[in-house]
Amino acid sequence: MMDGHEVTVVDNFFTGRKRNVEHWIGHENFELINHDVVEPLYIEVDQIYHLASPASPPNYMYNPIKTLKTNTIGTLNMLGLAKRVGARLLLASTSEVYGDPEVHPQNEDYWGHVNPIGPRACYDEGKRVAETMCYAYMKQEGVEVRVARIFNTFGPRMHMNDGRVVSNFILQALQGEPLTVYGSGSQTRAFQYVSDLVNGLVALMNSNVSSPVNLGNPEEHTILEFARLIKHLVGSGGEINFLSEAQDDPQRRKPDIRKAKLLLGWEPVVPLEEGLNKTIHYFRKELEYQA
Amino acid sequence: MMDGHEVTVVDNFFTGRKRNVEHWIGHENFELINHDVVEPLYIEVDQIYHLASPASPPNYMYNPIKTLKTNTIGTLNMLGLAKRVGARLLLASTSEVYGDPEVHPQNEDYWGHVNPIGPRACYDEGKRVAETMCYAYMKQEGVEVRVARIFNTFGPRMHMNDGRVVSNFILQALQGEPLTVYGSGSQTRAFQYVSDLVNGLVALMNSNVSSPVNLGNPEEHTILEFARLIKHLVGSGGEINFLSEAQDDPQRRKPDIRKAKLLLGWEPVVPLEEGLNKTIHYFRKELEYQA
Ligand SMILES: NC(=O)c1ccc[n+]([C@@H]2O[C@H](COP(=O)([O-])OP(=O)(O)OC[C@H]3O[C@@H](n4cnc5c(N)ncnc54)[C@H](O)[C@@H]3O)[C@@H](O)[C@H]2O)c1
Ligand SMILES: NC(=O)c1ccc[n+]([C@@H]2O[C@H](COP(=O)([O-])OP(=O)(O)OC[C@H]3O[C@@H](n4cnc5c(N)ncnc54)[C@H](O)[C@@H]3O)[C@@H](O)[C@H]2O)c1
Ligand SMILES: O=c1ccn([C@@H]2O[C@H](COP(=O)(O)OP(=O)(O)O)[C@@H](O)[C@H]2O)c(=O)[nH]1
Ligand SMILES: O=c1ccn([C@@H]2O[C@H](COP(=O)(O)OP(=O)(O)O)[C@@H](O)[C@H]2O)c(=O)[nH]1
Ligand SMILES: O=c1ccn([C@@H]2O[C@H](COP(=O)(O)OP(=O)(O)O)[C@@H](O)[C@H]2O)c(=O)[nH]1
Ligand SMILES: O=c1ccn([C@@H]2O[C@H](COP(=O)(O)OP(=O)(O)O)[C@@H](O)[C@H]2O)c(=O)[nH]1
Repeated sequence: MMDGHEVTVVDNFFTGRKRNVEHWIGHENFELINHDVVEPLYIEVDQIYHLASPASPPNYMYNPIKTLKTNTIGTLNMLGLAKRVGARLLLASTSEVYGDPEVHPQNEDYWGHVNPIGPRACYDEGKRVAETMCYAYMKQEGVEVRVARIFNTFGPRMHMNDGRVVSNFILQALQGEPLTVYGSGSQTRAFQYVSDLVNGLVALMNSNVSSPVNLGNPEEHTILEFARLIKHLVGSGGEINFLSEAQDDPQRRKPDIRKAKLLLGWEPVVPLEEGLNKTIHYFRKELEYQA
Repeated sequence: MMDGHEVTVVDNFFTGRKRNVEHWIGHENFELINHDVVEPLYIEVDQIYHLASPASPPNYMYNPIKTLKTNTIGTLNMLGLAKRVGARLLLASTSEVYGDPEVHPQNEDYWGHVNPIGPRACYDEGKRVAETMCYAYMKQEGVEVRVARIFNTFGPRMHMNDGRVVSNFILQALQGEPLTVYGSGSQTRAFQYVSDLVNGLVALMNSNVSSPVNLGNPEEHTILEFARLIKHLVGSGGEINFLSEAQDDPQRRKPDIRKAKLLLGWEPVVPLEEGLNKTIHYFRKELEYQA
């Protein structure tokens, strides 16, 4: 909007909140539509960032049927809209299309290792077929598509009940509760700060790269290292609680981002500790606001 | 219908033909509805065999968007119907959920090796997410589901333009044309005769096995062996024409059917040559009928 673009946000507020965009409400170039993408949508746009989907494991497992409908019917609707108005569509896909990977780090040519009938399948298979749909509309209808395979991302404005590891650990540390590590904590992830992702998404949207592109920070840590780091940054003396392992939990994950570097000139720039400190600050305020 | 059951056939006749069921038309327990499963369907039934989908590579690649809609929206509609009327639903899934497999033979625990954005993805990913949908409705809504992972099947009543290897080779041999082998012909398949499959589907539907079950004939041959066998059975002197390889063509495929044997007491009984002879007989008649 700073560049004069008109922005329409479409959300059914399943996990989103008006509060996240309230600073834009009233701006002449901003519009907010309370709408579920499972229903058709008729608006006029040039670019569609198709981000609508439950994203954290507890959220997408809460109602697997709805997760599937959002990623299948919802994606078909957004592609139908893109086709009708001639808009370019960017799909927020995910590293979960690689599942529990047998190739490390994961590059865009890897076909993935996903359990089609496991507890994560509503999300993983939903996103896989959403990608398939994008390329079907591209080849058959000439719709311009961009596919971002987003790796774990965190930052301010995350929901307190999101349930993903960063918000869980920070909130637990801030409240002096034990940090809940699922399994041994030896599984790895690589975490990207939200502003890096946003820059990557905009760069991808405005590039001419129609094939999938990984967007993530390749700095890999075990979940246990991560728990210790957050405890340290928060300055909490709390302990670490080892809970049972999550089913089909990917054991290693780290993006190969050579494609994004080469074709988009993009790479993450925010150091992990800096991003975490900003997020800790945000959650501290949220807890104060609640109290 | 011989057992007194009422049967309603729902088909949009994309690749199906009225002729395949014409001998039932007029029977008091038989009904034929011209309907596309991408649209909602309100009928009263106890069991749903959800077979609607383009199935041969040329057919499902002809309109990938429609293939995706049929397998996603179509499956959601059939599951919605099953939920509303309390029916049991059997999904005709496929060995294609295993993709180009890295495990041989393929058993039901294998997660598969599928290219989510390749030319076969509209079918493979469509069927994978259709399975995911079945288990989501089972867990969340208590819908009774059965999932048959069907391996290559052939038999009379196949469409002349089906485009799959058995009908292609037989028609070519009968017409004295060269048999078209894609690639070197060293890729393998295992072919099941249609009556064996039908018995397996009925056994699965009426069993209490809700997890996926492979239905196929484990007798594996290379495509080249297969071309030679069909030439021999037809008695054609024609040559074999090696064409370019199909993209992402699975290199080996053979079902592990121990689960079906153990839990359904089912296994294929029709020998390959006998099934082929019946199919050759059928296509000979079809050609005469056309002439
Ligand atoms: N954050 C990550 O680590 C990550 C990683 C990979 C992919 N992604 C993808 O990025 C996108 C955004 O994720 P996020 O982390 O911001 O999650 P989020 O839960 O904060 O945001 C998802 C948004 O989609 C909305 N939504 C859900 N279903 C909807 C529907 N049917 N109709 C309209 N709106 C709907 C929610 O209300 C919410 O505002 C998602 O598509 C997610 O799959 C995120
Ligand atoms: N024959 C095989 O080798 C094989 C292997 C694996 C799975 N299958 C599955 O078995 C099922 C039947 O396959 P087949 O070999 O008999 O193929 P087929 O093409 O002969 O039959 C498919 C039928 O579905 C109908 N159909 C397609 N789209 C439809 C729609 N949108 N609404 C209503 N009807 C629709 C077609 O008109 C046709 O009658 C398919 O689901 C297929 O994926 C077949
Ligand atoms: O501006 C539009 C155009 C289409 N659609 C939806 O997008 C879906 C897919 O569009 P497509 O053009 O493929 O569908 P068709 O109209 O051909 O069935 C349709 O079902 C519509 O519900 C939409 O939401 N907004
Ligand atoms: O409170 C939590 C939440 C998550 N995890 C683990 O942290 C990793 C990342 O989980 P998250 O839900 O954030 O995202 P995922 O990458 O699994 O989608 C996984 O190995 C989880 O098992 C954890 O140990 N404790
Ligand atoms: O008898 C029925 C009941 C439902 N549906 C369709 O099945 C879909 C999925 O059903 P579900 O109950 O999940 O949908 P809901 O009504 O909750 O949106 C719906 O969109 C309906 O179009 C149908 O075709 N026949
Ligand atoms: O005219 C044909 C049709 C198919 N094939 C090959 O036969 C195998 C089986 O193909 P089909 O289309 O019957 O089914 P699929 O198992 O690939 O779905 C594949 O390796 C095809 O490349 C062939 O060599 N010639």
